[in-house]
Amino acid sequence: MAPVKVFGSAMSTNVVRVLVCLEEVGAEYEVVNIDFQAKEHKSPEHVARNPFGQIPAFQDGDLFLFESRAIAKYVARKHKSADADLLREGNLNEAAMVDVWTEVEAHQYNPAISPIVYECLVNPAMKGLPTNQKVVDESLDKLKKVLEVYEARLSKTKYLAGDFVSFADLNHFPYTYYFMATPHALVFDSYPHVKVWWESLMSRPSVKKLSANMPTSWP
Amino acid sequence: MAPVKVFGSAMSTNVVRVLVCLEEVGAEYEVVNIDFQAKEHKSPEHVARNPFGQIPAFQDGDLFLFESRAIAKYVARKHKSADADLLREGNLNEAAMVDVWTEVEAHQYNPAISPIVYECLVNPAMKGLPTNQKVVDESLDKLKKVLEVYEARLSKTKYLAGDFVSFADLNHFPYTYYFMATPHALVFDSYPHVKVWWESLMSRPSVKKLSANMPTSWP
Repeated sequence: MAPVKVFGSAMSTNVVRVLVCLEEVGAEYEVVNIDFQAKEHKSPEHVARNPFGQIPAFQDGDLFLFESRAIAKYVARKHKSADADLLREGNLNEAAMVDVWTEVEAHQYNPAISPIVYECLVNPAMKGLPTNQKVVDESLDKLKKVLEVYEARLSKTKYLAGDFVSFADLNHFPYTYYFMATPHALVFDSYPHVKVWWESLMSRPSVKKLSANMPTSWP
Repeated sequence: MAPVKVFGSAMSTNVVRVLVCLEEVGAEYEVVNIDFQAKEHKSPEHVARNPFGQIPAFQDGDLFLFESRAIAKYVARKHKSADADLLREGNLNEAAMVDVWTEVEAHQYNPAISPIVYECLVNPAMKGLPTNQKVVDESLDKLKKVLEVYEARLSKTKYLAGDFVSFADLNHFPYTYYFMATPHALVFDSYPHVKVWWESLMSRPSVKKLSANMPTSWP
């Protein structure tokens, strides 16, 4: 069976969202780089894979998928095992908690943390743009409110959906990893249970392996 | 068995996202109104149900859930039947397509259409605020690009995930319903397959019933 293909860059947050699931379930895959400088993501070949001209796109034989969270769920479902059951769809209540915290990442955590990563890391280092401090300050305020909710949750359960690692936790890896390379990383020190949770995610072999391809500074 | 409880207002888009699934699967439910004017959504009772102080929240016996898409999936999974299989989790490829178009609604369609509903309907009618035309114009441009992708998709399949109604379609109901009461409803006329799809959703008994509680003008 040919390995599945992930189209995008192995340092892109949304691509890493898929790769971390592929690593966790032990699936073989190939990353096919898409050259943003050359606008390859807007080429007819790529738009045929992802009609919004974004990364990642995904191919498994005849099946083409896009939207990182949808791809990641397909991977988790296809390769589900006793060792790697990231969605818990066999248990109604556990699956619901995985969904709750997956949605929290998408609609509460990500909108707070991603502007800080763009303003403090991506824009200055990759695009030569200055940091918009107003955006950073507003996002930090939002992030702190979100982290308060996480602190309360993670003082009761080891991981977000319960006492098991799930898709909901792994989804936090890409943006949080880059956030930790900004001058605001110390924010997490005020939330001890969140910090322990984050360190336990960072110690996973999947995360260690992928981090090696995620530079936080550029020459 | 006591009916499940949905905390929120039956005219709120995110509450309706849950109610339409409850109606589709034929589950009994009770809507417990949360008074926004009285800031009831920030009360300790409600924050215990939803730590972000938002609506909806959901109760099924001892189980409390929040985040509308997570609640809706729980409802769909719990009451899955041959007549109402909204997630298609028994079929790997169908489930993937439901997820793809569910994510498209969340990350492409909703960010384009919801500002138009707020600017043209919610802000003027409910908050006495003027419409920000710049936001409307930018959002309309975005929405048209998204609708082009939908038109191409719906010229090949009857519904978004395939030739079956799914959670992905139903998710579009609340915001699109309100959008159709704005001066920009005619935008949909340029996308004939999208229009047919929308009319088929509007003809569903679940949608007809819930629309009756969704006013598009206020005295």
